[in-house]
Amino acid sequence: MTGRLLTIGDEILVGQVVDTNAAWLGELMTGLGIRVDRADTVGDDRAAIVERLREGLRTAGVVVVTGGLGPTHDDVTKSAVMELFGVGSRFDEAVFEHVRARFERRGLAMAPSNRSQAEIPEGFEALPNPVGTAPGLWRGADGTHGILVVLPGVPHEMKTIAVGSLVPRLSSIEGRAAIVQRTLLTTGIGESALQERIRPVDHLLTDDVSLAYLPSIHGVRLRLTGRGPDPESATARLEALAGHVLQRAGRWVYGEGEDSLEGVVGRLLLDRAATVAVAESCTGGLVTHRLTNVPGASGWVKGSVVAYHNDVKRDGLGVPESVLDAHGAVSRETAVAMATGARHAVGADFGLATTGIMGPGGGTPDKPVGTVWIAVALPDGANRAVMLRLGTDRIRNKERAATGAIDLLRRALTGLVEDDPGFVA
Amino acid sequence: MTGRLLTIGDEILVGQVVDTNAAWLGELMTGLGIRVDRADTVGDDRAAIVERLREGLRTAGVVVVTGGLGPTHDDVTKSAVMELFGVGSRFDEAVFEHVRARFERRGLAMAPSNRSQAEIPEGFEALPNPVGTAPGLWRGADGTHGILVVLPGVPHEMKTIAVGSLVPRLSSIEGRAAIVQRTLLTTGIGESALQERIRPVDHLLTDDVSLAYLPSIHGVRLRLTGRGPDPESATARLEALAGHVLQRAGRWVYGEGEDSLEGVVGRLLLDRAATVAVAESCTGGLVTHRLTNVPGASGWVKGSVVAYHNDVKRDGLGVPESVLDAHGAVSRETAVAMATGARHAVGADFGLATTGIMGPGGGTPDKPVGTVWIAVALPDGANRAVMLRLGTDRIRNKERAATGAIDLLRRALTGLVEDDPGFVA
Repeated sequence: MTGRLLTIGDEILVGQVVDTNAAWLGELMTGLGIRVDRADTVGDDRAAIVERLREGLRTAGVVVVTGGLGPTHDDVTKSAVMELFGVGSRFDEAVFEHVRARFERRGLAMAPSNRSQAEIPEGFEALPNPVGTAPGLWRGADGTHGILVVLPGVPHEMKTIAVGSLVPRLSSIEGRAAIVQRTLLTTGIGESALQERIRPVDHLLTDDVSLAYLPSIHGVRLRLTGRGPDPESATARLEALAGHVLQRAGRWVYGEGEDSLEGVVGRLLLDRAATVAVAESCTGGLVTHRLTNVPGASGWVKGSVVAYHNDVKRDGLGVPESVLDAHGAVSRETAVAMATGARHAVGADFGLATTGIMGPGGGTPDKPVGTVWIAVALPDGANRAVMLRLGTDRIRNKERAATGAIDLLRRALTGLVEDDPGFVA
Repeated sequence: MTGRLLTIGDEILVGQVVDTNAAWLGELMTGLGIRVDRADTVGDDRAAIVERLREGLRTAGVVVVTGGLGPTHDDVTKSAVMELFGVGSRFDEAVFEHVRARFERRGLAMAPSNRSQAEIPEGFEALPNPVGTAPGLWRGADGTHGILVVLPGVPHEMKTIAVGSLVPRLSSIEGRAAIVQRTLLTTGIGESALQERIRPVDHLLTDDVSLAYLPSIHGVRLRLTGRGPDPESATARLEALAGHVLQRAGRWVYGEGEDSLEGVVGRLLLDRAATVAVAESCTGGLVTHRLTNVPGASGWVKGSVVAYHNDVKRDGLGVPESVLDAHGAVSRETAVAMATGARHAVGADFGLATTGIMGPGGGTPDKPVGTVWIAVALPDGANRAVMLRLGTDRIRNKERAATGAIDLLRRALTGLVEDDPGFVA
C-alpha cells in the first residue's frame, strides 16, 4: 500500500514552524508496511487542499492529513473535505460532550466556536482525541478513493490519536494482516556492533517478522514488527523475536517506546529511594538539565556542580591538586575524584561525573578533541569509569557525553557495569 | 511571484530525518516577497522528481529543490533535471578544481566518484559551495518554465549557498527591485508589547520598506526588508527603518542574524575580562549548558552550582536558613542570596541565579506553577532581581527561564537593568 502525507498550514510555508509531524507519521507508516511516496505541505487554502486530496486519494491507498482543524483555522480542512466529497456535516453529540467536559474540568468557559469541533463531515467517523478538543477523522476506502485520515496539527494530539485509533485501524483493514510493533531503545553501542550481536537471530526474520535499526545521536532504536492473520498470532511472532533480541542485546536496551533515558534512571533511583549528584565539566550542565526535565526530578536529583574551571574541580569538588597535576583534568583519575567529590559535596547516594575536550579548541596529540572520561561513584564507595572517543562537533559531543554519563548511571543501578566488555572500568 | 519548494530524500519520507530546510527556505523566500504556496517531499526517485519539477516549473515563478545531489545519492536530482530539459552535462573545470583543492586541504584522497560533482547540466550555472563539494545549480526562467534552483540537502551547505548566491540573484532578477534585509533579535518583551513600542514608526512602512514580527519561545525576531531600484537605495531605506526601530526597541535587541544570546553575553564578558558563575535551581543546569555551548566558553564561565534541593542552596551556596524560612525557596530574597552565593562559592565576577516552580506539580495559590525569580549579583556587590510568570509546561518553562536569566546578565553587562520599567528590580 502507498501512503501520502499532507500537512496544512501557512505557518509551515512561511517557515515559522518546522513540520515534525511528517517525519513522525512517515516512520509510523513505514513501520506498518505502508510506503510513503510523497509528503506535501499546502497553506490554509481550501482550493489547494481539495486539489491535493483529490489527487492523493486517486493515486494512494491512504492519505493522512495533519493541521487545519479547530476553530482558529476556520476548520479549513474540514470544509475542504466536505467540498471534495460533496457532503454536509452532522453534529456528533459524543464529541460535543467530550469538548464540553474538557472545558468544564479546566474551569474554563467554552467559546461558542468550539461547537464546530463536533461537526463531523458525513461519511466520516470521529477518532477520539483524549488530549485535546479537535477529534481526528476517518473515512474508509471506496471504489475510487483511498482511505482518508485527518488529524490535528498539534504534535501531541496528532500522536495520541495516531497511536490510539489510527494504528489499530490501519493494521486491521480488510485484506491486510494484523500488525503489532514494539520499539526497543538502546544506547552505548553503535549500529553495526548491534547488528553484529543480533545477527545470529536473523534467521527468525521473515515476511511476518521484521526488525529495523533506527540510529540517532542518542542511540539506536530497534523497531520490531510482527504480522499475522490475527492480533494473537502477530503478537506471538513479535514476542518470539523480542525475546531473542533482548537475550542478545538486552544490556544495551534502556527502555521502550516513548521512554526517555533520564526518565528510566529516575525510576530506578526512586525505586531504591536513592539520590544523585552530578559533577559536570565538559557537559557544562547538560546532564543535570536532562535529568531535571523529568517531572518530579526533585525527588531524586539532589544537585550538581558544574566545574568548568580546575579551580572549581579543586575547591568545589575536592579533586586533589596532585591528581590534576599528575593526570590532567581529562583523565580517569580526575573523573573518579569528581564523581566522588559530587557525592560528598552535595550529599547524595550516587555521584556522576564528566570531563573531556569538546572542541573546537583544546585538543592535544595525546588527548584529541572528543576525548571524554565519565565516572560514577557508588554508595558503597566503589566507582566505575569509562572513556569515550567522540567527534569534533562541540554540540554533538556534549549531547553524546551526557547520554553516555546518564547511561553509565543506569548501568550502575542495574548492575550491568562490571561485566560489560565495552567498558574500560 | 509564487515559490515552490521540493525536498528530495527517502530518509525524509521514512521519518529518519526531519526536514528543517523547507522552513528555513520558506522564511527566506517569504522575506524576499515570494509567496511559497507548496512544499513537497519526494523520495530518491527520478520519475517522481521529474513529475514534480515539470508541474512546479509550469505553475510557479521559482522552484527551489534541496537534496539528492552528490555521489551518495547517485546524483538523482541532477539526472532528473537533465531528463526534464532533455540535455546532457558539461564538465566544469572551476568546480572540479574547487572539489580537488578541498580534498587536498584536508589531506584526503579524492574518490573518483567526486568527479561527478563537476558535471553541470547544460543550460545551468554552478553556484559556488564554499563549505562543501556539491555546487548549487541555477537556471533562469524561459517562456515556459520558472526559475529552477537546486541546492544540496546538507543544511549548512544549503544555507551558505542560499545566502551567498541565491538571495542576490532572486533580488536582482529582471523586473524586481533590489532587496536587502536585516534580522534584529529581541528577547524579554512579548510580540504585542513590542508592536506597541514600534507602532509610532509604522508610517515608515511602505511597499518598499517592511517589518515582520517572528515570535518564538526565546523572543521575537524582527525582519526588516528594504526594496529599491538598486542596492544602494534599498539599503538606505532599510537603514532608515532600522535606526527608528532600534531607537524605540533597542534595549530588547540583543543581536542580529545568526547571533545567539549566550554568544553575545560571552563576548560582553570577554570584553571586560570578567567571569560568571551560575546558581541554578528551577533551570536545573540549562543556563550553564547554554552558556557552555559557545566555543571558548571556558574563558568566561567559571562554574555553577545546580541547587535543586534546599540543602544545596544552604550548604553549597550559603543561602541563610532564615531567608529560606522567611521567604521560601522561590522568592526575590533567595534568588539574590543564590546569585551572591554563586559569585563567592565559585569565585567569579558575576553571579546569576534562577529559582522557581516549573510544574507539573509544586504550585501553591501564592506561587503557582510558572513563578520564577531570577537574579544577578554584580562585581560591586549590588544585585538585581526580576520575577517571571511563565506557563504550565515544564520544558518550555525551563527554556524561558534560562533565556530570561541569560538576558538579565546581558542587561547587567550593558547597563540596561536599572531604567527598565519591565523589571521588578
